[in-house]
Order: sequence, then structure tokens, then C-alpha cells
Amino acid sequence: MANSYRSGPIYLLLLAFCMLGPGHSLGAQEKSSLAMMPMPAHVVPGEGEFPINGNFGIALEGYKEPRLERARQRFLNTLSRETGIPLWREASFNPPNFIVRTGGPSASVQQLGEDESYHLEITSTGAQLTAANPIGVIRGLQTFLQLVRITPTSFTVPAVIIDDNPRFPWRGLLIDSGHRFIPISAIKRNLDGMEAVKLNVFHWRFADNQGFHIESKQFPLLQEKGSGGFYYSQDEVREVIAYARDRAIRVVPEFDMPCHTTSWFIGYPELASSHDDPSHSSAMDPTRKETYRFLARFIKEMADLFPDSFFHTGGDECDAKEWETNPHIKEFMQLHGISDAAGLQLLFTTRIHVILASHKKIMEGWDEVLQPNTPKDVVIQSWRGLDSLAEAVRKGHQSVLSSGYYIDLNQSAAEHYMVDPLGVGTATLTPAEKARVLGGEATMWTDIVSDENMDNRIWPRTAAIAERLWSPQALQEIDSMYQRLAIVSQKLTYYGLRHRLITDEMLERMSGEPDPVPLKVLAAVVQPPRMYERQDLRSYTDFTPLNHLDDAVPPESDTAREFNAIAKRIVAGKASPQDWRQAQEWLTLWRDNDAKLEPLLARSYLTQELAPLSRNLSQVAEIGLQALNDLRENRVVSRDIRQRNIDFLKGSEKPQAVLLLMIAPSVEMLVQANRTQ
Amino acid sequence: MANSYRSGPIYLLLLAFCMLGPGHSLGAQEKSSLAMMPMPAHVVPGEGEFPINGNFGIALEGYKEPRLERARQRFLNTLSRETGIPLWREASFNPPNFIVRTGGPSASVQQLGEDESYHLEITSTGAQLTAANPIGVIRGLQTFLQLVRITPTSFTVPAVIIDDNPRFPWRGLLIDSGHRFIPISAIKRNLDGMEAVKLNVFHWRFADNQGFHIESKQFPLLQEKGSGGFYYSQDEVREVIAYARDRAIRVVPEFDMPCHTTSWFIGYPELASSHDDPSHSSAMDPTRKETYRFLARFIKEMADLFPDSFFHTGGDECDAKEWETNPHIKEFMQLHGISDAAGLQLLFTTRIHVILASHKKIMEGWDEVLQPNTPKDVVIQSWRGLDSLAEAVRKGHQSVLSSGYYIDLNQSAAEHYMVDPLGVGTATLTPAEKARVLGGEATMWTDIVSDENMDNRIWPRTAAIAERLWSPQALQEIDSMYQRLAIVSQKLTYYGLRHRLITDEMLERMSGEPDPVPLKVLAAVVQPPRMYERQDLRSYTDFTPLNHLDDAVPPESDTAREFNAIAKRIVAGKASPQDWRQAQEWLTLWRDNDAKLEPLLARSYLTQELAPLSRNLSQVAEIGLQALNDLRENRVVSRDIRQRNIDFLKGSEKPQAVLLLMIAPSVEMLVQANRTQ
Repeated sequence: MANSYRSGPIYLLLLAFCMLGPGHSLGAQEKSSLAMMPMPAHVVPGEGEFPINGNFGIALEGYKEPRLERARQRFLNTLSRETGIPLWREASFNPPNFIVRTGGPSASVQQLGEDESYHLEITSTGAQLTAANPIGVIRGLQTFLQLVRITPTSFTVPAVIIDDNPRFPWRGLLIDSGHRFIPISAIKRNLDGMEAVKLNVFHWRFADNQGFHIESKQFPLLQEKGSGGFYYSQDEVREVIAYARDRAIRVVPEFDMPCHTTSWFIGYPELASSHDDPSHSSAMDPTRKETYRFLARFIKEMADLFPDSFFHTGGDECDAKEWETNPHIKEFMQLHGISDAAGLQLLFTTRIHVILASHKKIMEGWDEVLQPNTPKDVVIQSWRGLDSLAEAVRKGHQSVLSSGYYIDLNQSAAEHYMVDPLGVGTATLTPAEKARVLGGEATMWTDIVSDENMDNRIWPRTAAIAERLWSPQALQEIDSMYQRLAIVSQKLTYYGLRHRLITDEMLERMSGEPDPVPLKVLAAVVQPPRMYERQDLRSYTDFTPLNHLDDAVPPESDTAREFNAIAKRIVAGKASPQDWRQAQEWLTLWRDNDAKLEPLLARSYLTQELAPLSRNLSQVAEIGLQALNDLRENRVVSRDIRQRNIDFLKGSEKPQAVLLLMIAPSVEMLVQANRTQ
Repeated sequence: MANSYRSGPIYLLLLAFCMLGPGHSLGAQEKSSLAMMPMPAHVVPGEGEFPINGNFGIALEGYKEPRLERARQRFLNTLSRETGIPLWREASFNPPNFIVRTGGPSASVQQLGEDESYHLEITSTGAQLTAANPIGVIRGLQTFLQLVRITPTSFTVPAVIIDDNPRFPWRGLLIDSGHRFIPISAIKRNLDGMEAVKLNVFHWRFADNQGFHIESKQFPLLQEKGSGGFYYSQDEVREVIAYARDRAIRVVPEFDMPCHTTSWFIGYPELASSHDDPSHSSAMDPTRKETYRFLARFIKEMADLFPDSFFHTGGDECDAKEWETNPHIKEFMQLHGISDAAGLQLLFTTRIHVILASHKKIMEGWDEVLQPNTPKDVVIQSWRGLDSLAEAVRKGHQSVLSSGYYIDLNQSAAEHYMVDPLGVGTATLTPAEKARVLGGEATMWTDIVSDENMDNRIWPRTAAIAERLWSPQALQEIDSMYQRLAIVSQKLTYYGLRHRLITDEMLERMSGEPDPVPLKVLAAVVQPPRMYERQDLRSYTDFTPLNHLDDAVPPESDTAREFNAIAKRIVAGKASPQDWRQAQEWLTLWRDNDAKLEPLLARSYLTQELAPLSRNLSQVAEIGLQALNDLRENRVVSRDIRQRNIDFLKGSEKPQAVLLLMIAPSVEMLVQANRTQ
């Protein structure tokens, strides 16, 4: 009987080995380097190392406040998880060898551009962290935690002198609680992750057509009718704001208006442009006084709830037709000489701007808010490209870049990393214009991401974006980025993030197997298609369960990236014997996988659709093995056969079951390199 | 650069391993069976299955209370995690096809022996759960969750009729927050696990010599001086009690006295037997009136805090010498005609019994509390064996068995499973005596277990103990137990338990590698020694970091158990070709592992001690491969060589680095089976 469930553990580990092997074991060189992310502005390596052991003690000196005490305890908790030494208990009693000195307080509400700098000095006998205020201390403590590593004698941090401060003052992560309700626990653990990589703005979006997920006491039908019963109470919101402040993170709320607002209309249909059919309306009526009376009260309530100086009112993607086909609105436009929907939106923006100004809030909006007469103090969040960012700052607006940081679109860490708010598209800006580029924001839209798989969309890639926004512009080495990203990714698990666990858990669930090895083999080499292609391949509603393989796998296949690097070296004639062997072994694994996976796929309704993809992996690998052998032997290949293989590979590069076979292009590269007559 | 972190040529070998086939996956037979644990009392399988999809709806009928609403939401949360379908949001709006009917309320404080029965009936079109009270509903909902599985058409639960009720009314888990402070989050997730397997008593132990970890408002120096700053506030305790009640779990507090009490004496030295040296005293002075005055106030405070009818006052392991060598105590003994320490303990027990009775609490104590004149209503928790349990019930005491359920001692699930409170040692009891056996308790002592690795000591083995205490005595099939245990173990991850994650996280940390494959290979075949041998092999204090391999690995090696089963089949001549292949591949993997692991071990102070163990694994595997080949060829082996190998294997069965090489006995079995001249 034992036969029938021959066991998990060893398969699991072998799988991990077979699949993830090379990319994940770092050489001695990288291990001895300083695997920080974001890399600090100035780093001077020293000699020796400071041991972290049971004698570690920490003292807070200078300015004191409870937030610093909590930061110290949080630091000790993480250090304890990093080392397995229960310093969370002991380090307060030991003589201090890590001195943390705080100059003075920070603003009572964290401000844009507030000093985040710190100085960290580590010698073989002790460490000192100094900063002007608690924000700098919070940043420096995270740097210290990133430096911890194990050695033959103990856990240590290397001797080093670091002077650090951020390049941009606005380094954000948007979490979209509008499309889907995201539980507080998921919000909190991602705030922990943000602290780890020194992000400082949590852009929290509460409503969209699909739902209204925050409590309004002024207009309770908003959540009562619009949330399906799942919304954040104002107490919970305050708890998150305090949690974020502890981590030196500002919370900027977004209430997207006047469009993306269907969920508002369930409780308050009078707000809708289409009174006859509010449930199919997504735009507020910008022509009625009542709309502004409602919003004035609503904004006052939320402006009181959220202490931050900035207040985001969305403004994106208004459907011009909804206004322009409405007789009542058309009449209004004629009466006031407004020629188009853009004019209506400007009217709306101007009115909202006045309301926000009365509460001393700085208005922020998406690209579409930018119009010729938009008030100059409105901050533009650019989602359409660097051009629109440049246009905004040229027109005098402060701006935040999100185009290129859409982490829901399954781009690689490298792609995100190479997007610079002051990169190519903004190169011709004047210094004054450049100064108006505040930074950037990764955006975790939840159209087709849930709280379950959210962590693996956000992490580790957002760490690369965080580095782009914090570290010197000159830092551009992709290989170094990926090497440090792997280490940071591991350390983020000490913060409770689930990005490294999710895939396996979901594969187990969808297969009904405690350890579905062949499915893991397939999962390691596929990715969901980039950009908006997923929506074209499967129909998603707000209620579509996100439990397929395309939901489970990370947006970027590490294995495929590794294989691609090897294939490139082989084609370039620069491959080592180990490269050849590795390629051979991986291709053999993949070729033989379908035979084992196929019976497993049939047993579950969630995996049946993967059968063609699995067959393709085997066939692509078969072609790859042949090409590899031909290359090794320098064999001449028939032009016809080569073309047939290339045709097949091209076909295999198209999505199947909403997934791309990421090794197909590398195999094609090998085939292309074969000699023909 | 990718070159620099490529890993070794282990691939070829592993490749073969990975391709071994679907042997690890459960057979169709097991999948179609009902993988519940604990197995219900009466199960009648039906025809067909009930689909769990987006149309699933649940309704609560009959008696209503907020706890039932919360149970429903918790049920939906778990069901959502099991399926990836966001039923937590939707199932309240769908027309109900799962009807839950509650007869009436349960007691306001959950009572021993309260009705936990339920009736669950599932057809292809719907499900009905009925129970007399919320406790039965809570039990039945967990059974439903265990039945969920994936099929080619959808997630389903099979048609079935279940009538269920527990065999014993006391089914507990002790968590020892005395030796080490265990954070509330860890307590809560283990209460979730307890609910999943229908345990109903959380025995929460707050103090030991090492620490006093609960707030006393009457005697605040207890926690202020005795806790190192880490203790549960009374609000937190109330929160846990409410959390447990929601899960139909009673909370029985333990304050161990009069011994194991050094931590009390830091704040209140006058309680100690030795006034001169209270910090080296572990026993209270049972002769002074002040001791009882103190305890009367303290017990009143705690009796008010904990609503349960039972109150555990420990009473174990008093050091007779501490009393008998104390002149003041000796004088008291002579004066009152008390001849020995046992007499003093009886005096103490009697006094405490009176105090507890005045608060309407039933006293519970460990074995040592049982003396000829101990009041008959004192419940005895037996930790020394079934004999002491039998003695207690013969003397008229109700009793709870913990001997055999010490989950800190690294015994196998099978060993625990075969311990029955009414088993061999108690077979001669009369029915009346048997009725006084209330059940049993798994004990998670934390002498050398921390909150980090606690989950992998508790789970999944405690599910096997839970089955022993809930299910019919006749259920004794070890193979079936292990098969269901593997499924339950996976499902427990949906409750947030970390038992399946801990080992890998700790291996990564101790090696400093994101994916230390060869270390995982070693880890999968070793176990910490059973019973109290660990303490003999390493010196542990309260502050010893528990971050070595013996802390990281589960108490039971699944791989070694599997290998052992294969070796047995080979020796018995009943092995399949796949058995032979599997044995060959595993042994080859192990033989070749040291070459890869050895350089890795040297880099970390936590893994250096493993070098001899790793070498041994390779050598044992080498011998195993030879024996396997000799068996296959039916070769005659020299008696000398065989004896030399057996001697070496015997040596390898001894612990190294506080770990046992669990495959060595199986290899010895293969060697013993070789023919000699």
C-alpha cells in the first residue's frame, strides 16, 4: 500500500534541484559582495565582519518616541528569523554593540521629500546607525538586515560604511482594492515588504466599477450596497495608516472619479450619468450640482480619515460616449459652451480641485486629468508612457511615473528595472522640469489577480523597481540585479510574504496531488503572456476563480531565463562543458515530462486544458535536443527539416491555456544556429 | 556572469530520479476513498458527488448565534482556499445547496462531555448538516472540508451519509508557554489546526522555572520580573479563549506548582523553599501560611480569567531533597508528623484543592498528584504510562492520558497512533473504571522546541492522535493512517499552519543558499533521536538557538519510511521492478550526495558539524548499492565483508550531530539478506 503514495519530500527536493538549480546557487564571489537592494548611494566596504550572535545588543540613543521602540522590536524579530537566534527576547538585555542614534522627530504626518537619509557604519566590533529622524533610522535598519549572512564562524554583517539617501522622494506601490477586496492581512504583509525595500508611498485604491470597499459613515449605502459585505471599516483603515507610518510609509488614498464608479451607483443611483440605467453606467454626472454636493461631503469625510497631504481622485478612462449621448448632459454642454467630454472632465477636475484645496489636500490624478487648464498644483500619475510624464512636468505639474511599472502585466524584472523616470523619454527636460518628476509607483491592479497570488506578482520584481527609484541612476547591471534579487526574494520570506510558496500550493490544489512533480516541471518554464493579452485569451469577470496555472506561476520564469542564457552562450561559442551538459539535461527532462504529466492532467478539470501545452514542451525539447547534438557535432542539417522545426517552434511560441512556453525561443535560437547545406 | 553561479553536475543523476514516474502520486483507489481524519464513527458511502463551484451556497437554519455566523465565514474561507474559488465572497448570495441546521445552544461555557455529534448527508444535488448544538455543527463543517477533492469536472464532495460522535470527551493539545514564550499568532494557528482535526481541549501552560508568561494584576512582579518582557496580557488571554470557543475548544490553564516555579521567585522570593537562594530553588515552600495566602489570591484571579471548569495545577517532579534538607521545613514535618516529601505534596494538593473548590473549579494535576488521600475529584493527567492511568481510575479519579502522546520526543505517527487510552495497559479495567478515562492529550513541550519549528512537531502527527481519541477503537490500519495523514497534512496548510514550510526555510537559512539541494537530500533521510536522547547529545539552555538541522527536520522521515518499506519488500521477495529501480536510484542519489554537500557545509558554522553525517550517508548508500546488486544477482558474499559492512552500519545507526541516519537500518536489512558462503 505504501507503494501507492510513494512519497513527496524527495521528489520535491529533486524537482527543485532539477529545475531551479543553477540560477539559485550563488558563487562565492556574489556571496561575499553586498547583496543590498536598493543599493545605497554610497558604499565603502571595510575589513572584517561584525558577528551576530547571542551577545548582540541594540540601544536607541538621542531622540526617542514609541515608533522607534516598535521599529527596534520589529528589527529584532526579523533579525531573529534571519538567524534563528531568539534575539527578539535577548537583545534588549545584552550590552549594546549596535548603537542607533536619532537626531530628532519627523513631521507628525510624513511629508513628501522628508529626509530619509542615514549613515551606517559597521566594524568588526560594533555598528552605528545615525539619522536625522526616525524615517532615516527605519531605512537604515533595513539595510542592516540585508547585510546579514552566514559564515563559517557565525552570522555576520560585513564591515562597511554606508551613506545613503533616495534619488526620488516618491517611491510607491499601488494596491487596487477596487476590483477585488484585499484582506487587511495581505495589505499588512505587503507593507512589511515595502519597508524592506524602502518604498515610502502606499497608494490605496478603494473603489472601481466592481466594488466599493471602504466604509463611509456619511454615505453608508456605498459600502452596504456596493461591497458585497466586504469593506474596510474606518477603524481598520486607521490601523493600516498607523501600521504604514510605523514603517515610514505614507498612505495616499484613491477614489477614482468621475468614471470607474458603477459600484457607487448601486446605493446612490442619482450620481450616475444615466439615471435610467445606473447599473450600466460607469460615469458620474459631471453636470449636476448634487453630484458635487455629494462629493464635497464624501471628500471631507475621507480627507479627515487620511492624514496624507495628497489625495488621489483617479480621473482615468472616461467613456466620452456616456456623456455625449446623454440628452441632459448634451444640453448642459451647449448651454455652457463645452464642446466635448474632455471639457466636461476639466470642469469636474476643477470642481474637485476646489473641494480638495479647501481641505488643504493636494490633488493627484491619472494622465487624463492633464488638460491645458488643469490647475498647476495637480500631481499627474502617468500610466500611458514617459511622454505623458514629460508633457506633465513641462506644463508645470509634479508627476509620478507608473507606466513601465505595471506589475500586473507579467513583464520581467529586467524590463521594469530599465524604466527610469528620467530615462530616454524625459532626457530633454530642463533641470527644473526634472525636479518635478517625483518618482514612480508599481501598480498592483487586481483585475485578474487576487489576494492569494498577489504576493508573487508584487515580489520580488517590485524590489527591482524600488532600486530604480532609490539608487543612483547609473546602476544598470541586469546580472547583478538578478543575483541580488534572488537573495532579497529569500529574505522577504522572513517578512511573512508568500511569493515563494504560492505556486506550489496552487499546483497541489489544482492537481489534487500532495506533490505534483511533473506539473512543477511544466510550471517552471511557462509564463502568462505579457501586457493585456490574458484578457483576450480567457474571459474574466470579477467572479472568475483565479486558480488556473496561469494564475499560479510567477510572472517570470527563472528557469527559462537561465536556459536562455545558456543557449546564448552555446550559439556564441562561449559555452562551458557544464553549459552543454546542463542544456542536455534540462531538455531531456522536458522531453520526457509529458509522458508522466499527461495522466495527471486528465484527473482535474483545472489541468485538462494544459495537455497541448505539455505535449508542446516535450516536442520543443525533442527538437532542442536534436539541435544541440547537431551543434555539438557541427553537423549539417537539411534546410527543409530546419525550416519545419522553426515553423513548429514559432507555433509553440503562441500562448496555449493562457501560457507561453518560455523555452521555445531559446530552442529556436539553437535551431537557427545549426549549419545547413 | 551566469557562469559564476552555476551548480554542479548532479543533474544527470537527478534527472533519472525526477523521471522516475508517477509513483509518488496517490492511486486512484485512495483518491476515491474518504480521506477523513479523524475517521467518523459511521460512514455510508453513496453514489455520485456534489459539485463545489461558483453556485455553492450555504444557509444556517434553526438556532442562531454569532458564533455560528463566524463558523460559516471561517468555513467559506477555508473552502475558498481549498478550491481557489472566492466563495468567501459569493456563497452568501447564492441559493443555498448546503443547509446547516442547529438544534439549540450549547452551554455558555463549554463542558466536558457536551454533545459533539452531527449528521452529515451529501447527495449529488446538495448537502445537509444537522447537529444538536453549535459544537456539532463546527465538527461537521470540518468533516465537509476534508471531503473536498478535485475531479475531471469540478471540485466535489462525494455522496455520503455520516453519523459521527467522539469516542472520548477529552481530546487535547498542550502547548507549553512556560519554557518558551509562544507568540499569540502561533497559538491561534494551532487552534485552527485543532479545530480541523476535532480536538477540543487546549491545555495552556504558562510558567516553568524558565519563565512566567502571563499577566497577573494581583502580583505584577510575576510577569515583570519573570518574563523577560514577554507575557500574555489578560486581554490577549481573553482573546485566545474567545478564539478557542469559536472553534469549540475549551481552554484549560496550567500553573505548575509547587515545583517548576523558579520564575515565580524572582518577583516573590518569599514563596521559595530556599529563602537564602531563591534563584536556585524550584519548589515553593508548602509549609508557610503566606504561600497559601498568595496562591489563594493568585488562583482566584486566574479562576476568574479562565471560564473552564477545570484548572490544572501541575504538581510534577518535585525535588524531595529541596524540602527534606531545609531545616525549617524539616521542623514543620516533625511537628505535623509528615514523614516525607510525598506527604508534603499531599498537604499542598489538599490545600490547593480547597482553594479551587471555593471557585467551583475541578483540580487537575500530573501523575505525582495521585496519592492515597488525594481528593477523588482531582483529575489525573498521566505522563508516566498507562499503568499510572489505570491506577488513577482504579482509585476513583478521572484521568487523561498523555504518556505516549509526547510529541516533543520525535516518535513516529504510527507509535502515537497505536497508543490507546483503553489499550493493553488498561485492558483489565472495569466498565466503571474505563468510563473515568476521559481521553488524552498531545503535549507540545518547548524545552527544545520554539515557536518557529513547533508546527512541524505538532503537525501532522497530532492528527493521528486526534483520530485515536475520536474514532472507533478498531481503527488500527497504519498504512491507511499514513495515506490519510499525507492528505490531511496538505489540507492543514490551508489553515495557515507552517509545518510543511519550516524545514526548507531553515535549511536555506543555515546554509545561506536560496536552494541548498544537497542539504535537502540529507535532511530528508535524518531524524532527531527519539525520547530524551537529544538532551544528552547537545547542551540546551533556555537561550540555545534552535537553528540546527536537528531543529529543522520533521520528527519523522517520510523518505526513510518509504525506503524501509521497499527494502522490506525486496528482502521478502515481493518487490516490484519499480521497487528495485527506486531503491537503486535513491541509493545512487545518496551515495553521490556528499561530494556536492561537503563544500557547502564548510561555508556555514551551523552546517559544519554535519560533515561526518553526510559522509556516512554516502558510505551507507554505497554499501546499500552493493547489497542491492548482490541480491539482484543472487551473488554469494564473503562472510567477512558482510560482517564488516554490518559493523559499519551499526556504527552509522548511532546519532551524529544530534541526528539519526534513518536509512541505515534498512540498508542493514539488505545486507543481512545477502547470501554468504
